Amino acid sequence: MTVRADLNISLDGYATTTDQTPENPFGLDWGRLVDAYVSTRTFRERVLHDESGEGTTGVDDRYAQAYFAEVGAEIMGAGMFGLHNYPDDADWRGWWGDEPPFRVPVFVLTHSERPKIEMAGGTTFEFLSATPAEVLARAQDAAGGKDVRIGGGATVVRDFLKAGLIDQLHVAITPILLGRGIRLWEDLRELESGRTVTSEVAESGIIHVTFRRE
Amino acid sequence: MTVRADLNISLDGYATTTDQTPENPFGLDWGRLVDAYVSTRTFRERVLHDESGEGTTGVDDRYAQAYFAEVGAEIMGAGMFGLHNYPDDADWRGWWGDEPPFRVPVFVLTHSERPKIEMAGGTTFEFLSATPAEVLARAQDAAGGKDVRIGGGATVVRDFLKAGLIDQLHVAITPILLGRGIRLWEDLRELESGRTVTSEVAESGIIHVTFRRE
Repeated sequence: MTVRADLNISLDGYATTTDQTPENPFGLDWGRLVDAYVSTRTFRERVLHDESGEGTTGVDDRYAQAYFAEVGAEIMGAGMFGLHNYPDDADWRGWWGDEPPFRVPVFVLTHSERPKIEMAGGTTFEFLSATPAEVLARAQDAAGGKDVRIGGGATVVRDFLKAGLIDQLHVAITPILLGRGIRLWEDLRELESGRTVTSEVAESGIIHVTFRRE
Repeated sequence: MTVRADLNISLDGYATTTDQTPENPFGLDWGRLVDAYVSTRTFRERVLHDESGEGTTGVDDRYAQAYFAEVGAEIMGAGMFGLHNYPDDADWRGWWGDEPPFRVPVFVLTHSERPKIEMAGGTTFEFLSATPAEVLARAQDAAGGKDVRIGGGATVVRDFLKAGLIDQLHVAITPILLGRGIRLWEDLRELESGRTVTSEVAESGIIHVTFRRE
């Protein structure tokens, strides 16, 4: 029952881009940041419902598989669900289509209450205003003994890291410099303390760094 | 005749620590940041004049060897020479003992003029106030066809990067979070543009990332 987080960040530590527009809701930089991840076979199958078998199958795909494996519940911020972009749309059902890739209970942190949504494939979205520890307790109850993933965005992951609630943090570092956005690495001095850090470079050039609690 | 820079940085991008005291002139964090580098056989031989043959000989040592190879002149900031710590000591001759590891002409950027110093082993220290392009021209004249290294600190390297004057940047990333100091990655958006980026992980866990101009 591990609490995990996985983020794509740039070499200068930006996990969230801030150049979003209505035409490019994820921002122009986002594509460059997650290119290797969305090119994996696992992402294509799981998120895009692409059953062609295409996509990369190397180190990046191994992490993509691990991303979805053994997760029993997910926690995300309002921004990751898209509420910041569609604050007045009561019918907004998230970015991920009718059959989202999570397939587990998802808890969305927001101050604006909404009714719970049930999606195809087993994903539910439940909205609540709570501290990291409170929502984690809810998610762990829902996870049925499996892992809980803190999905993002960067600010939410940082809040959970600062509260000492994450057992395993994996960052996929794209070797580009964005120079703007939301930095994951703020106020996290000595995160490595009490953790084992391992790194490997994928065929794509992505640097995968994992912090595991000892 | 490549213009090169090599820096040790933390995972959160801090290249210079700022916890220096008179008792710990490099700061307590500095030791953790450069531990793998100072453990190499090349550093021990070249900087510490340790001829015992001890020290690591893996990937980190390969970079340490490259650090000193084919360099014909060096440029550094006043802080790297130690002038910020000893501003009133007219006899200050730098951090590196009587026989510094550079063995080439070193140009120290400072607004306070000082006479040129000649050290044992071929190192000279010359002090000047100049723009990056100006001092680079001086160093290239002195380098006799060899490479020029921009030694540091982080602010000086960043100035040369922003001026487009560095052909090859190597950062040795220690997977620790310092959370304070001077960040290399500021105002360097899209540094990777027109450059090839390669990464590898050393036995020590250090992540070596190199940007080479195409």
